[in-house]
Amino acid sequence: MAVRGPLSRVFRSALSSCQQSRAHSVAIVGAPFSKGQKRRGVEHGPKAIRDAGLVDRLRSLENAVHDFGDLRFEHPQEDNRFMNVPYPRTVGRANEILSDAISRAVGAGHTTVMLGGDHSLAIGSVAGHAQHHPELCLIWVDAHADINTPMTSPSGNLHGQPVAFMLKELQDKMPVVPGFSWTKPFLAAKDLVYIGLRDVDPGEHVILKSLGIQCFSMRDIDRMGMQRVMEVTLDHLLARKQRPIHLSFDIDAFDPTLAPATGTPVNGGLTYREGIYITEEIHNTGLLSVMDLVEVNPALGASAEAVEATAGLAVDVIASSLGQTREAAGLSIPQIVEPNADTNLRL
Amino acid sequence: MAVRGPLSRVFRSALSSCQQSRAHSVAIVGAPFSKGQKRRGVEHGPKAIRDAGLVDRLRSLENAVHDFGDLRFEHPQEDNRFMNVPYPRTVGRANEILSDAISRAVGAGHTTVMLGGDHSLAIGSVAGHAQHHPELCLIWVDAHADINTPMTSPSGNLHGQPVAFMLKELQDKMPVVPGFSWTKPFLAAKDLVYIGLRDVDPGEHVILKSLGIQCFSMRDIDRMGMQRVMEVTLDHLLARKQRPIHLSFDIDAFDPTLAPATGTPVNGGLTYREGIYITEEIHNTGLLSVMDLVEVNPALGASAEAVEATAGLAVDVIASSLGQTREAAGLSIPQIVEPNADTNLRL
Amino acid sequence: MAVRGPLSRVFRSALSSCQQSRAHSVAIVGAPFSKGQKRRGVEHGPKAIRDAGLVDRLRSLENAVHDFGDLRFEHPQEDNRFMNVPYPRTVGRANEILSDAISRAVGAGHTTVMLGGDHSLAIGSVAGHAQHHPELCLIWVDAHADINTPMTSPSGNLHGQPVAFMLKELQDKMPVVPGFSWTKPFLAAKDLVYIGLRDVDPGEHVILKSLGIQCFSMRDIDRMGMQRVMEVTLDHLLARKQRPIHLSFDIDAFDPTLAPATGTPVNGGLTYREGIYITEEIHNTGLLSVMDLVEVNPALGASAEAVEATAGLAVDVIASSLGQTREAAGLSIPQIVEPNADTNLRL
Repeated sequence: MAVRGPLSRVFRSALSSCQQSRAHSVAIVGAPFSKGQKRRGVEHGPKAIRDAGLVDRLRSLENAVHDFGDLRFEHPQEDNRFMNVPYPRTVGRANEILSDAISRAVGAGHTTVMLGGDHSLAIGSVAGHAQHHPELCLIWVDAHADINTPMTSPSGNLHGQPVAFMLKELQDKMPVVPGFSWTKPFLAAKDLVYIGLRDVDPGEHVILKSLGIQCFSMRDIDRMGMQRVMEVTLDHLLARKQRPIHLSFDIDAFDPTLAPATGTPVNGGLTYREGIYITEEIHNTGLLSVMDLVEVNPALGASAEAVEATAGLAVDVIASSLGQTREAAGLSIPQIVEPNADTNLRL
Repeated sequence: MAVRGPLSRVFRSALSSCQQSRAHSVAIVGAPFSKGQKRRGVEHGPKAIRDAGLVDRLRSLENAVHDFGDLRFEHPQEDNRFMNVPYPRTVGRANEILSDAISRAVGAGHTTVMLGGDHSLAIGSVAGHAQHHPELCLIWVDAHADINTPMTSPSGNLHGQPVAFMLKELQDKMPVVPGFSWTKPFLAAKDLVYIGLRDVDPGEHVILKSLGIQCFSMRDIDRMGMQRVMEVTLDHLLARKQRPIHLSFDIDAFDPTLAPATGTPVNGGLTYREGIYITEEIHNTGLLSVMDLVEVNPALGASAEAVEATAGLAVDVIASSLGQTREAAGLSIPQIVEPNADTNLRL
Repeated sequence: MAVRGPLSRVFRSALSSCQQSRAHSVAIVGAPFSKGQKRRGVEHGPKAIRDAGLVDRLRSLENAVHDFGDLRFEHPQEDNRFMNVPYPRTVGRANEILSDAISRAVGAGHTTVMLGGDHSLAIGSVAGHAQHHPELCLIWVDAHADINTPMTSPSGNLHGQPVAFMLKELQDKMPVVPGFSWTKPFLAAKDLVYIGLRDVDPGEHVILKSLGIQCFSMRDIDRMGMQRVMEVTLDHLLARKQRPIHLSFDIDAFDPTLAPATGTPVNGGLTYREGIYITEEIHNTGLLSVMDLVEVNPALGASAEAVEATAGLAVDVIASSLGQTREAAGLSIPQIVEPNADTNLRL
């Protein structure tokens, strides 16, 4: 796919005409954090995804990629459990820091990619996004609903609860968790769509049903097909008005055969092509504003190949969200290149 | 998924209200038998499936699981071939014993799960079921049609012939096989549907066509999609009247990449999600009465992982047939749990 | 699946009645050639595919299989690059030889199977076919469009350019490549359909769009489903008139998990079942005249199993193109075999 030699001139002129239509700058924010769950290693997710070639891949698609490196998180010395929730202040403070970073990146006009880390980070990522775009909508691609409250969570882990911190409708169902005084609910249940669910806790199920949240479980995908799922998803969120999209993509949405290096794999997940189709459709709206790619845990693959496959899949998902297509690689060319007199003389 | 702590009270009350709607008791009958085919090891299928956690999984869904252990089969000392059929009397007697056991379990009101063993055991399982429910219908999920007669069977193995012993329309096409005097054909061809076929012998093909049996080959599934296949299947069997379903599920219906530990794998099989969708749809009818899960052969996996994957898949298929869903795990809760004064005081 | 004993008589009579309807003879032409690309080993593709049982498999379907062995190619001593194209004269001469061989096989009335070798061989294969059937249409199943010209090709490799040598519409876009004076463009862009594309170079994209070539990328397959893709493909090519089909099948159309032993694998490819469905549909037209099966490279599998899987898949694709079905294996039987007095006496 590297382009060399006689094409370079063509590409340079194509490039300048493309900058017009495609030009958006991408910010990458790494969030090496794992205290929202119990398995160590997910804090190395940002490094694994970068090592799989993220920046070069995005540069091949976009004219400006700004990698802001990894955030530094503070770990409060004293952080007792709240109910059965471990590390509430640590998770709260990390998300506060992340929220600021995302808010600044969005404010600077970047399409922003947050690399996790565990999915508790979505609290800060979406909250920071909402500071600039309170009208945003949220597409949550995941095997899990991550909408437990501390009251309903079987494990207590905050990576299973981020959505409960966001939803206005759950405000009076949530206790006051220490570490989260910097945020308050900002999202309406009607502005959220789930895709890929297949392991939903009982307490989550009642929340999803009570609030009438639009969910596409793997069973729904089996019934309807992904083409129709995306059609309904985008219609549900965008038909009334065009607005910024936040995509929060948990790598465990994919089948464990494709994404083995993750903490809570569940059989029967998305195929590679379904995952790519989701992100192509989101890219095609032209409205993607921030995306999270979380739960790549390089400590959990059974082999180096398993880790590389998982991180490479993360790169494909991000690149596809940001314009990589299966119909034409790289930059477009305005017309068929013709041989010239010089070429045929070389015979 | 284990539920602990503050939820236990909620669950207890949910449990009592659920018992109303979900209450059915499940009987498990192991049939460690392999003489219907030539590869040894399939007699250890029941143990492999139980070791993969069957009983606990079903207990998490149902209020009563009765594991009746494994049947003891007799092996007649003298058992000469009949035509090219090996062990006719051994297979016949095992099925007679199984038929009695299934009949008793059904008679006692249990939804019954038969763990094979090879697929010749379906003769006894369906026959025993039919003693109580002669109006039953049969859904056969398999790579193979298993409808050879001793006249047409290329191999002679009885695990390729069980359906021929059941069908009334084949009565005059069947020779009198020693060991089977205890049973006679009881099923009409119109009350049978096949799903997943992809390796059909020439003699089977002519039987399927002559009797007009409703078959969905993998090609049909590719053409129609599984959602439509199940719609037509259930309509075909249940539109005229609601009646008990016998599901006979051969693990080799799945693709060999998913179910490698089986005797006659064939490429191009069901995906995990297609298999689960079939069983969800059958569960949702509320009419499943007996199911067979056969041909898990722990001696044939290339590795321990291959055997565990195959047995784990068998557990998923059985659990999904008996109510496990991808939309909500475990028991349902009537309403969103709210924090109470006590919770917030704990701050 | 071997048929022995009591069936042999039935089969012999079935055979003679089948010869009527099915009779076509198949020619196999091996093309052990690799100079259209840079990775050595693909010249051993024909041997790998034969070793995977091709001839026996086709004999089980057809009444006459003629394996003409492997072609002998000349390697000119002097063969300087043309622009950035390596080995132009070597590739040109090999294709000239192949073109003659295919032309003779088609002329002799055989349905012809060309085993590659790299995909540059399609130049000779389709050209030879067109000598007898200038009205042919071409179905190109591949991850890549292989429609670069020497002007647009990023790599210069001729296995990425064969279609550019065939298309009349590209005649004035092509330089005069040494080694190809024996052929001239013979195919109209409207007589070509692509299936499976997912890695299209920028210069290819503009050609495909400019010429309005019917393409089904993996994204299109995800959107439409393979059933609809084949319906549109065959309608596009055959609705106006029935005519011979040339199927040029690159094994890299399949997902790399299925066909790892190939030179330019791309994630997100065809499933086994999609590939088989394509070939079943083409067989069912009754119009398949020549097929290529290319880019099996036994030097590139990570293990012997990987190579065997890839070569076995190639055999399945060829067999399915030539009549193997998932609905009935082997030869058909006219009616249900009945037991006779003799059979029951044997009791």
